[in-house]
Amino acid sequence: MDTEILNLGVCSLASPLRFTHGGRFVSDDARILKSLDLSEILCAAGQGKEPVSFEAAGPRERIYFDPARVRAAIVTCGGLCPGLNDIIRSLVIELYHRYGVGNITGIRHGLQGFMPEAGHAPLELTPALVERILDMGGTILGSSRGPQDFDRICDELERAGVQLLFMVGGDGTLTAAHLLAETVRKRGMDLAVVGIPKTIDNDIAITERSFGFDTAVEEATRAVRSAHTEAVAYPMGVGLIRLMGRHSGFIAATAALAQQDANFVLIPEVPFDMDGEGGLLWSLDRRLAERGHAVIVVAEGAGQHFFGEREGLKDASGNMVLKDIGLFLKDAIEGYFRAKDQVIAMKYIDPGYMIRSLPANAGDSVFCSFLARHAVHAAMAGKTDMLVGCINGAFVHLPLALCAGRRRHVDPGGPLWQAVLETTGQGSLRGV
Amino acid sequence: MDTEILNLGVCSLASPLRFTHGGRFVSDDARILKSLDLSEILCAAGQGKEPVSFEAAGPRERIYFDPARVRAAIVTCGGLCPGLNDIIRSLVIELYHRYGVGNITGIRHGLQGFMPEAGHAPLELTPALVERILDMGGTILGSSRGPQDFDRICDELERAGVQLLFMVGGDGTLTAAHLLAETVRKRGMDLAVVGIPKTIDNDIAITERSFGFDTAVEEATRAVRSAHTEAVAYPMGVGLIRLMGRHSGFIAATAALAQQDANFVLIPEVPFDMDGEGGLLWSLDRRLAERGHAVIVVAEGAGQHFFGEREGLKDASGNMVLKDIGLFLKDAIEGYFRAKDQVIAMKYIDPGYMIRSLPANAGDSVFCSFLARHAVHAAMAGKTDMLVGCINGAFVHLPLALCAGRRRHVDPGGPLWQAVLETTGQGSLRGV
Amino acid sequence: MDTEILNLGVCSLASPLRFTHGGRFVSDDARILKSLDLSEILCAAGQGKEPVSFEAAGPRERIYFDPARVRAAIVTCGGLCPGLNDIIRSLVIELYHRYGVGNITGIRHGLQGFMPEAGHAPLELTPALVERILDMGGTILGSSRGPQDFDRICDELERAGVQLLFMVGGDGTLTAAHLLAETVRKRGMDLAVVGIPKTIDNDIAITERSFGFDTAVEEATRAVRSAHTEAVAYPMGVGLIRLMGRHSGFIAATAALAQQDANFVLIPEVPFDMDGEGGLLWSLDRRLAERGHAVIVVAEGAGQHFFGEREGLKDASGNMVLKDIGLFLKDAIEGYFRAKDQVIAMKYIDPGYMIRSLPANAGDSVFCSFLARHAVHAAMAGKTDMLVGCINGAFVHLPLALCAGRRRHVDPGGPLWQAVLETTGQGSLRGV
Amino acid sequence: MDTEILNLGVCSLASPLRFTHGGRFVSDDARILKSLDLSEILCAAGQGKEPVSFEAAGPRERIYFDPARVRAAIVTCGGLCPGLNDIIRSLVIELYHRYGVGNITGIRHGLQGFMPEAGHAPLELTPALVERILDMGGTILGSSRGPQDFDRICDELERAGVQLLFMVGGDGTLTAAHLLAETVRKRGMDLAVVGIPKTIDNDIAITERSFGFDTAVEEATRAVRSAHTEAVAYPMGVGLIRLMGRHSGFIAATAALAQQDANFVLIPEVPFDMDGEGGLLWSLDRRLAERGHAVIVVAEGAGQHFFGEREGLKDASGNMVLKDIGLFLKDAIEGYFRAKDQVIAMKYIDPGYMIRSLPANAGDSVFCSFLARHAVHAAMAGKTDMLVGCINGAFVHLPLALCAGRRRHVDPGGPLWQAVLETTGQGSLRGV
Repeated sequence: MDTEILNLGVCSLASPLRFTHGGRFVSDDARILKSLDLSEILCAAGQGKEPVSFEAAGPRERIYFDPARVRAAIVTCGGLCPGLNDIIRSLVIELYHRYGVGNITGIRHGLQGFMPEAGHAPLELTPALVERILDMGGTILGSSRGPQDFDRICDELERAGVQLLFMVGGDGTLTAAHLLAETVRKRGMDLAVVGIPKTIDNDIAITERSFGFDTAVEEATRAVRSAHTEAVAYPMGVGLIRLMGRHSGFIAATAALAQQDANFVLIPEVPFDMDGEGGLLWSLDRRLAERGHAVIVVAEGAGQHFFGEREGLKDASGNMVLKDIGLFLKDAIEGYFRAKDQVIAMKYIDPGYMIRSLPANAGDSVFCSFLARHAVHAAMAGKTDMLVGCINGAFVHLPLALCAGRRRHVDPGGPLWQAVLETTGQGSLRGV
Repeated sequence: MDTEILNLGVCSLASPLRFTHGGRFVSDDARILKSLDLSEILCAAGQGKEPVSFEAAGPRERIYFDPARVRAAIVTCGGLCPGLNDIIRSLVIELYHRYGVGNITGIRHGLQGFMPEAGHAPLELTPALVERILDMGGTILGSSRGPQDFDRICDELERAGVQLLFMVGGDGTLTAAHLLAETVRKRGMDLAVVGIPKTIDNDIAITERSFGFDTAVEEATRAVRSAHTEAVAYPMGVGLIRLMGRHSGFIAATAALAQQDANFVLIPEVPFDMDGEGGLLWSLDRRLAERGHAVIVVAEGAGQHFFGEREGLKDASGNMVLKDIGLFLKDAIEGYFRAKDQVIAMKYIDPGYMIRSLPANAGDSVFCSFLARHAVHAAMAGKTDMLVGCINGAFVHLPLALCAGRRRHVDPGGPLWQAVLETTGQGSLRGV
Repeated sequence: MDTEILNLGVCSLASPLRFTHGGRFVSDDARILKSLDLSEILCAAGQGKEPVSFEAAGPRERIYFDPARVRAAIVTCGGLCPGLNDIIRSLVIELYHRYGVGNITGIRHGLQGFMPEAGHAPLELTPALVERILDMGGTILGSSRGPQDFDRICDELERAGVQLLFMVGGDGTLTAAHLLAETVRKRGMDLAVVGIPKTIDNDIAITERSFGFDTAVEEATRAVRSAHTEAVAYPMGVGLIRLMGRHSGFIAATAALAQQDANFVLIPEVPFDMDGEGGLLWSLDRRLAERGHAVIVVAEGAGQHFFGEREGLKDASGNMVLKDIGLFLKDAIEGYFRAKDQVIAMKYIDPGYMIRSLPANAGDSVFCSFLARHAVHAAMAGKTDMLVGCINGAFVHLPLALCAGRRRHVDPGGPLWQAVLETTGQGSLRGV
Repeated sequence: MDTEILNLGVCSLASPLRFTHGGRFVSDDARILKSLDLSEILCAAGQGKEPVSFEAAGPRERIYFDPARVRAAIVTCGGLCPGLNDIIRSLVIELYHRYGVGNITGIRHGLQGFMPEAGHAPLELTPALVERILDMGGTILGSSRGPQDFDRICDELERAGVQLLFMVGGDGTLTAAHLLAETVRKRGMDLAVVGIPKTIDNDIAITERSFGFDTAVEEATRAVRSAHTEAVAYPMGVGLIRLMGRHSGFIAATAALAQQDANFVLIPEVPFDMDGEGGLLWSLDRRLAERGHAVIVVAEGAGQHFFGEREGLKDASGNMVLKDIGLFLKDAIEGYFRAKDQVIAMKYIDPGYMIRSLPANAGDSVFCSFLARHAVHAAMAGKTDMLVGCINGAFVHLPLALCAGRRRHVDPGGPLWQAVLETTGQGSLRGV
């Protein structure tokens, strides 16, 4: 992307109206550098160009909305992710205790909850209601997949008097949030739409960390450990673990580094061959001949090129329906060794929902508590059409247009993937 | 079974030769009652019949083998089960420290390890080697499935000078142990074969508890919790968990009681219908209409009657290959609601290998430490063709012929299943 | 105790009045044998004596109270114990769903909650309220220590119209329950008092298992593992863990067997010497000289003989205030080696409250669900002045008079302690 | 510190001699910015000053040592910390597999292991030896406290032919590493000394993250949860948790944010009063009167001003011996309420060693694997008198002189402490 686009500011609703007192504030001019590289910065400065940077998150000295009158709403969308209840809790606590916002509505079951005909009555959210939800997985608001009509959502928001809308969700939800913010703008509504990125795959563009990822990796390592235990127990044991990662291999790669027992890691960013010398089957065969067992970690989005033309199937959220690479590999490996009359012991593990449904671990809980706080600061200051992201460990405001529909990927030449290659010794897996 | 058969004694090799000193001993005449029911006992006594009882386990005053010369061997067979390493460790520690047996061989990868051509060199087992294995899942000896030739095993045992053989395994292994003991007898070998029953399903006949079951239930409840979290998050959410239990539903039923979130529990012992009013689909439909979500726990051996004639497929261990009831249910439920044009959110969880590969929890560790001790006491006293079992909380010696090839089942009229019915309120699931 | 006393029946309120239908029932004549020993039973039968047995628990065909009118109350007393919320939940669910009892009061903060001046308003208990409490440690009703006036409690029970009182607590609470039942009898009240024994130490007389113990051992093994990790890390490392066990060493002994890293286990039932050859300090010194590290597990009630005359201090529950053997040992050991000018690395761990506050593990949850069900069956059938216990794995009714004020102990000659002696190799620890 | 000091380069041994091939390399000129603040950078640039930055870590194109001949040594010092075995494992794997260094010595029990008279024979480290150590807490090398004579260490390093020394330890160890590096320089030895900062308190200067902290916070939240469960169970329940943090409150503050049940958090950086209106006792009293329970988290280094003049006691590592603020608070609170004749239920929890002895969680494991890799890259390139640190999420080389003897602290005006103040609502705790 162009630097000019990246350096775009975040939208605000008019000029802030009110003052709060006490504490330290962050100026709207404060910006966080995207790159930490000194020479890159000096070079840009030498050319008179401003380095890429993003608006710093944090409490603003002036706020836009009147806490005594404003009504906030929270909605959680898409697949489960550890930390959703942490986000809900922190939004409510911060709105209520720091800003004095007493009217907070929980929209139930995602965007469906805006549609009266779906019959999901909204939930009035209070500090008491959210006090003990941190140890629970899932989301007390429920979720759903799929888009809804933006004008009807606006109608419902108007009817309910909502002026702060927090939308917690993945790529589809953030795209919806952006389109909704545009509808809001067109209709001249006085309503801030603030996104909180939720992606267990950790692949939303620009923002370097998303909540739940840490917890997901923790549990994924248990699955890898199980696969290893099974694989070593049997002659020619093969442990095959399918992990999350539709478009990116962050969970698979990171879990492989945490646990160090994987011998092959397959991710969407790095193509591999099944056949030929050097291909996966050949390499697995050699590994089994030498060591007697092997562990394979595959991200669900890996190897989609084996499925020929995608038929363009999409699920209710508009996500491409992926062919199941886990079962494909299981069948291919079993077939390969059956053809060789070699008995193997295949152990297939798919821990998906057992990961998604966990409560957040401590690291994610702390991260969520800051993320939600910053979303509240932004919304109260009248920021809109934006999400709260994380760059170089700092929280920033990012225009929704900058992130929605774009993804981060594992860089095949970067340190994460290089470390995986070192740990596994798997080579290129390209067959000749 | 007839009382006379049940009251059969346990085989011993000749009369014990040697003395040990110190400690409390258990007499060979000590017997443990099978029934705790006073009136049953009094009634038997009134009729001059001896109540059913089993030989009590425990250290004997006289032992048969000379610890200084005897060589023991340990083999673990079949699927993984939490506690295998506890068993190995306790056998080694008890043989070495209590009886002074210094020669202990670990046979690798199950019965395969007896066949020189398989190339699995045996492992010399010492206290130092097994000291830190309690926290590891699996078995340090490895395992395998499938039978081997008994005469060849006897040849190898003779060649290696083994006189104590501990066979840790499930129904197939215990049957093999019995046949092996008969071959040993025919050949006039001076060798004790002692079985240690391993069944994560907890369904070996007569013995009421098997190691690993406790740990399995603990982890299975995590899966049920995950399914519940997923199910409640979505409109019309269905959490479907496939648990272990080829012939019996102990894990499924017990996990459902521990976690209390299951709405339907399906086990091999209790047939159910898919169709018709009152059948599973109808009941699920009603549950979803009323509550908006449902959790189904299915044991892998449930509902096999849906698959028509079994084709007699067996795996390498001789276990019947079951059709996958989990995926069958998943498809059937999705099909049913698709036909009704009702969107549901199906979440399918199969935690099998993540359960089997765990290390034992504390309860199982303690149980294993006693089970293995009793196996050593029995073997040193010259007991053979037997296994160590557990009746009414007491350890007993059971003839292999009594248990091998027979299973325990969940009693559909007993307290466990009645408690499940109360907890789930699922009714009979028989369609009209 | 005499057999006649042990065979005493359980009190019932008049004769049951009503019928319920369906299911299997347990007759009031059904009795569970205390001993499993065949020869003991045959010998008793030969002498014309009835063997010791206890009334079997279970649903009765006739019940005494009218579910539509009766009001039940639940109170939890004393120290926290994993499973309290499981007990509360199962009592409520069973009363409500099986018997149709709609009026259930939760007394808050133990017996204090009966005293209006304490200001703890009771809680109306419903299935919805208790649905999600299984994952929470502690008790949603709160607890407290200390006795209260029985006549005043009766006054309050009458005022509230309570006819079923479930008292969950330890030795002090069960004694109070018995005295309360006597007051109830004297006053001619139509009220059943049913005790549910709660002792994390697992030492209530006769009943062989108490809820929470399994969970406590699980967490205690974590503490022992920590102590071992610390001890081996340092030259002359000593890990010292103080575990629960005021009068009995079940937790200490069982955790030591589960984890197998303890070198010395000290329990109230087995006296030991600090000084002299063979005493603890001498033995520890030798162990450190030989192996460089040691792990000591001490139950809180061990070694109280070192403290001279007890000053008769009792806490609010009437429990003797114990001198802290953990800190005593820590000081004594440090002093001993300081005097020898030997540097040691002492690591002291006291996990008490981290254990007590845990939610129940799966095994305890299942146990609690049966225990509470049986308490409800007993109470509805008009049983009173009794508790639900567990003998040889079966649930029984025990008169409160039989258990209150009496304790189980680890038998120094029995298999548990013998196994600990084998595992630790600690010897007698008696100094010469 | 002055910018010039901060921008100091890292020492290298002469100029690198050899080439390696393949992969991406990091130039010695690559530098990582300390500040992410755009305006700060632009302002510095406007004044012609170079912003503060640090040398980027990563593999260098040229290496200094000959892998075929070089001998590396690893030593772990001071208190246990989750991740030590991860560090050891990754150092060995990277040295062996990436660089081909076959000679790696493990020094046992910290710096003591260099002294022959201590009798701790070194351990030859191989990939096979370290393969399965990730799941173990502690350090397989052992540790110890206390300094040793640098000239003697140099003698031993020379005798053993060590040229790469990795020292893993806290502030004392890093100071020792710096002094050792100076001795090495004076003696003209060809030996690189690379520090790997280990501080469970996360307070080593400049570097923003240290391994084990994440795991420590995770376990600390369990302790806070226990304290909360105990506190709410009793009338006037007070849960008091003493956490690690000798000079900084990072663990206490972060755990309080993760768990959100603490009502008072006390850290070394923020003084508080016991007495007076607004002081801790007054505030606690008010909290108990209003809510009936309270949870207090105290870092071990908090409130040292209550102990008058420190007597200058230091432990074997040269760390100041702190008075025990946990027991001080326990006594003070109990005394305060006793004087008021108010019964409270005090529950004191000190999970110290149960935290330190844990294996690393997945997040720490991944962090350790990168940290150790970068240490190997640095050492092989001939860097010395340095440590590997982490700034803004990037790994950097820091001169030991810059970090040793300096600490990071929680900024009382920064976002971490402000978030704690919001979460607890504890106020200033300064008495009037």
